[in-house]
Amino acid sequence: MVIKLTISYDGTNYAGWQVQDNGLTVQEVIETALNKLTGEVIRITGSGRTDAGVHALGQVASFTTDAKIPANAYAKALNGLLPKDIKIVSSCEAQDGFNARFSAKRKTYGYRLYVSDVELPVKDRFAVRVDAINEALIKQAFSVLRGKHDFKVFSATGSSVVDTVRTIYSMSLKKVDGFYEVRVTGNGFLYKMVRFIMGALTAVSDGKLRVEDLLTVLASGKRPNVIKAMPAKGLTLLSVEYKK
Amino acid sequence: MVIKLTISYDGTNYAGWQVQDNGLTVQEVIETALNKLTGEVIRITGSGRTDAGVHALGQVASFTTDAKIPANAYAKALNGLLPKDIKIVSSCEAQDGFNARFSAKRKTYGYRLYVSDVELPVKDRFAVRVDAINEALIKQAFSVLRGKHDFKVFSATGSSVVDTVRTIYSMSLKKVDGFYEVRVTGNGFLYKMVRFIMGALTAVSDGKLRVEDLLTVLASGKRPNVIKAMPAKGLTLLSVEYKK
Repeated sequence: MVIKLTISYDGTNYAGWQVQDNGLTVQEVIETALNKLTGEVIRITGSGRTDAGVHALGQVASFTTDAKIPANAYAKALNGLLPKDIKIVSSCEAQDGFNARFSAKRKTYGYRLYVSDVELPVKDRFAVRVDAINEALIKQAFSVLRGKHDFKVFSATGSSVVDTVRTIYSMSLKKVDGFYEVRVTGNGFLYKMVRFIMGALTAVSDGKLRVEDLLTVLASGKRPNVIKAMPAKGLTLLSVEYKK
Repeated sequence: MVIKLTISYDGTNYAGWQVQDNGLTVQEVIETALNKLTGEVIRITGSGRTDAGVHALGQVASFTTDAKIPANAYAKALNGLLPKDIKIVSSCEAQDGFNARFSAKRKTYGYRLYVSDVELPVKDRFAVRVDAINEALIKQAFSVLRGKHDFKVFSATGSSVVDTVRTIYSMSLKKVDGFYEVRVTGNGFLYKMVRFIMGALTAVSDGKLRVEDLLTVLASGKRPNVIKAMPAKGLTLLSVEYKK
């Protein structure tokens, strides 16, 4: 049976999603819980890796099992074994061949900023402090970034991905609860792509990069020094969509 | 010189505001930083104690010092010495005789709930999960609680306070960013009073306590078992007001 899990985590204390040697990862913690629950050694596939410190409201993972546990019972059973900062929001049976990574059609990330002279501990766990925000300039920059582009310039070096063309379907900026939240929906994202896009948007907002220059940056594939990857803690994987 | 500090903290890892033997407190951490900064042994006075695990966006504290540091420089200087989960939002000189506790006129607390079948790690640090919310019933209950009452029934036993009459100036329920936030402004609050009020409101919302019965509870001073103190983590001291 193929099981689909929807997962929420506070990534603060994890070395990202994917199993690795340097530090505990979210995938590893869930696989350990699944092993305790089923007795099987199960490898789960996430919709994608999230970096160290990145959070998730709706990460999706899939796995195959011979266990005789009803699909919708995994959420509750696993939550009893998982730590407070990783929880299974829901579990269900997926069609044969479903793969959380390869079947994914669209992903939506949210990135939160807040304006303050001082880092505010009640806001700073899931967001990043900035001195100011120019909403109009950020919205102008969206028009450059939306659509199908080679986003190589917005990916970290060291990635093995060959095809760096991705499509951004929508971008929005909303003021909510004292935060500015940028939401971006696309068919896929390169390593650190959203964090570099946020670096570009904050550079535009700060007047360090003109909106027109963003076009040149995308076209030339050369990233100016003013565009840096913004911190992981402001980023949350909100949802992953699959074909019905 | 009398200095007034406005302070924000994530209370998760502290045994509350006030210095005590069992565990590290926010007051203690700030006093240690002040000692390093000024060389003086300084005792600060908070506007009130917050319990273990309660957060603050705008706690206020005051102290007297002979140090020759400009009043508005304390915020930045202390923030360099403080941990990430305690920050000074601002510092200024206060009038002689100003005392953060005794000069306080009004305090506003916020308490956050969210509706979900499962605890969500990205929401659960500053809020509490509930199965459902009946907004209409909660708003009806506000009309019982607003005003001047003996709130003894909504305070924890063991408090040494004699006068248990307090005035609640306003209460509101707002849906914001996926949370339900109850805000309550009053001239002062008894030990655990907001958490017991939240216990009463959630009991009313769940249909375990009728709004009419809240009147009886307040009048009789007998707290039924359905009213429990809600968890500290959902509570944030938002602001403290002083006479201009």
